[in-house]
Amino acid sequence: MSSTDLDLENIPSIDLQTFTHASVSKQGDKYWFFEKSEESFPGQTFGLEISRILYHTESPFQDILIFESTTFGNVLVLNGIVQCTEKDEFAYQELITHLPIMSHPSPKKVLVIGGGDCGVIRELVKHVEDNTVESITMVEIDDMVIKLSTKFLPNMAKYHNHPKVNLRIEDGFKFLKETTEKFDVIITDSSDPEGPAEEFFQVNYFKLLLNALAKKGIVIMQSSENIWLNIDYLKDLLVKARIVFKNVAYSQCYMPSYTSGQLGLVIATNDEEKTLQTPLRRFSEEKESQIFQYYSSEIHSASFVLPKWAKNKLDL
Amino acid sequence: MSSTDLDLENIPSIDLQTFTHASVSKQGDKYWFFEKSEESFPGQTFGLEISRILYHTESPFQDILIFESTTFGNVLVLNGIVQCTEKDEFAYQELITHLPIMSHPSPKKVLVIGGGDCGVIRELVKHVEDNTVESITMVEIDDMVIKLSTKFLPNMAKYHNHPKVNLRIEDGFKFLKETTEKFDVIITDSSDPEGPAEEFFQVNYFKLLLNALAKKGIVIMQSSENIWLNIDYLKDLLVKARIVFKNVAYSQCYMPSYTSGQLGLVIATNDEEKTLQTPLRRFSEEKESQIFQYYSSEIHSASFVLPKWAKNKLDL
Repeated sequence: MSSTDLDLENIPSIDLQTFTHASVSKQGDKYWFFEKSEESFPGQTFGLEISRILYHTESPFQDILIFESTTFGNVLVLNGIVQCTEKDEFAYQELITHLPIMSHPSPKKVLVIGGGDCGVIRELVKHVEDNTVESITMVEIDDMVIKLSTKFLPNMAKYHNHPKVNLRIEDGFKFLKETTEKFDVIITDSSDPEGPAEEFFQVNYFKLLLNALAKKGIVIMQSSENIWLNIDYLKDLLVKARIVFKNVAYSQCYMPSYTSGQLGLVIATNDEEKTLQTPLRRFSEEKESQIFQYYSSEIHSASFVLPKWAKNKLDL
Repeated sequence: MSSTDLDLENIPSIDLQTFTHASVSKQGDKYWFFEKSEESFPGQTFGLEISRILYHTESPFQDILIFESTTFGNVLVLNGIVQCTEKDEFAYQELITHLPIMSHPSPKKVLVIGGGDCGVIRELVKHVEDNTVESITMVEIDDMVIKLSTKFLPNMAKYHNHPKVNLRIEDGFKFLKETTEKFDVIITDSSDPEGPAEEFFQVNYFKLLLNALAKKGIVIMQSSENIWLNIDYLKDLLVKARIVFKNVAYSQCYMPSYTSGQLGLVIATNDEEKTLQTPLRRFSEEKESQIFQYYSSEIHSASFVLPKWAKNKLDL
């Protein structure tokens, strides 16, 4: 269905007992969501017990499933892959946002590609309130995700109408090809390469990012992988990034609801002087505790430290 | 069955299609192991696809299941909880061993409580070969685990007959009550509190550890928890440790096969001068790459860095 048909006030309830979906199965008298992918992570799965199915649709872009879990709060699933759970979403949202923002001397103009759950915007607004970030442009292809997030992930999707946010419903790839604007920070918060986000994991995408980046700007993107899952793919992704950017680093976020309990982020800039592993700006411990749950200047640096074998394999 | 009845040369094959176990279920035409615990981690599960059941028994102490997975190698499961998989076991074995060893100025006498898969011994032997560790005493209650590990985890269980290893098949708790020996490092590599290891998570156990510890000695134990799972339990465990030890720290290991993709380690000493977060001894990067896959001096320090909320909650 399309988003214009979506009536958030009158969402019909779904009977779990008759609901069918490739990711949902019954075990004993309980219903479970299982994240499985023969291609991306064969032989392993993460499961969450379902208490209620909140919504399911095929949007023009992807399969969208939202359920209430028994212990992780509400869960957003795109094409069978967990995007966020209310329990641990702050980990990823904070790391992908504050790594580049706190590494940049003056991140005034920020672009978000994807990010339909609006968690990254929520984090960026903290820096608007701090008089650092002046404008946020978010380009999301699927406004169903935004609308459904306002309903079912209200702690995430609350600032898409913020006066400093310019929300555009269109293809991020196309936007980057056409824009003449230059941004200080570009955050690609996409879904995984299977589906509409496939183009985001190619050399050409890094070139488009560079083209839209102000001098000394910083880009960050989720890698869709981690060191345990497919380190060869990661190595290849870093090689692609290094074709375009002179300074490329790799950070990991550790949270239970992502495959293997961790997800990698690729961060890059053409500023060769910059040490991305060390934040350029720091808040006091007290302020960190007020505005962050996951991020801190210590976490910033530690997130780049990889196990010995992975560090060697990725030439980091 | 008891270990004396175990004939490693003639292990009967098990038919997966007729095998029944609380942790094993069929989905479509595939068989999966699911790690579930209503008590310890309700509503979430980690699953591994099974290619063959290698062994199953009820020892006098616990339920032992060993299977070959399609993508994680052989897997040892005690009382339904994954102890190690061939794919990622080195992460935990290296961190729990090298954190205390590399923090101690001269770790000559080492005691291992538990550790039946013999992975910790394998790691300790690296320091014997380095002329640092002089003797290793290992006290494991269940010799079935050791014997089965020699058969099914041959890369882990290969040094229990090493000339510097004194292997004792008995209750670790009882051993500590009776021993008059003093150790420089004590590693508690137990299973989780449900089962024979329950006593290892109490104040009294920390007192026994202190009693068997040489001056400036260091203890480490797996916490059976992580910050996402049950942070109140962890807080309580650290409080218990601080009743006995003046200097207590908490480190996390990040690996896919443990619940939530991470497992905490409690490390403690009465040496108030020591900064456990910084290794006292370091190898060259080259030597680190030769003898370690997970550990490095960088990983040592980074493993203690927790997300802001967890650091605050645990008073670290």
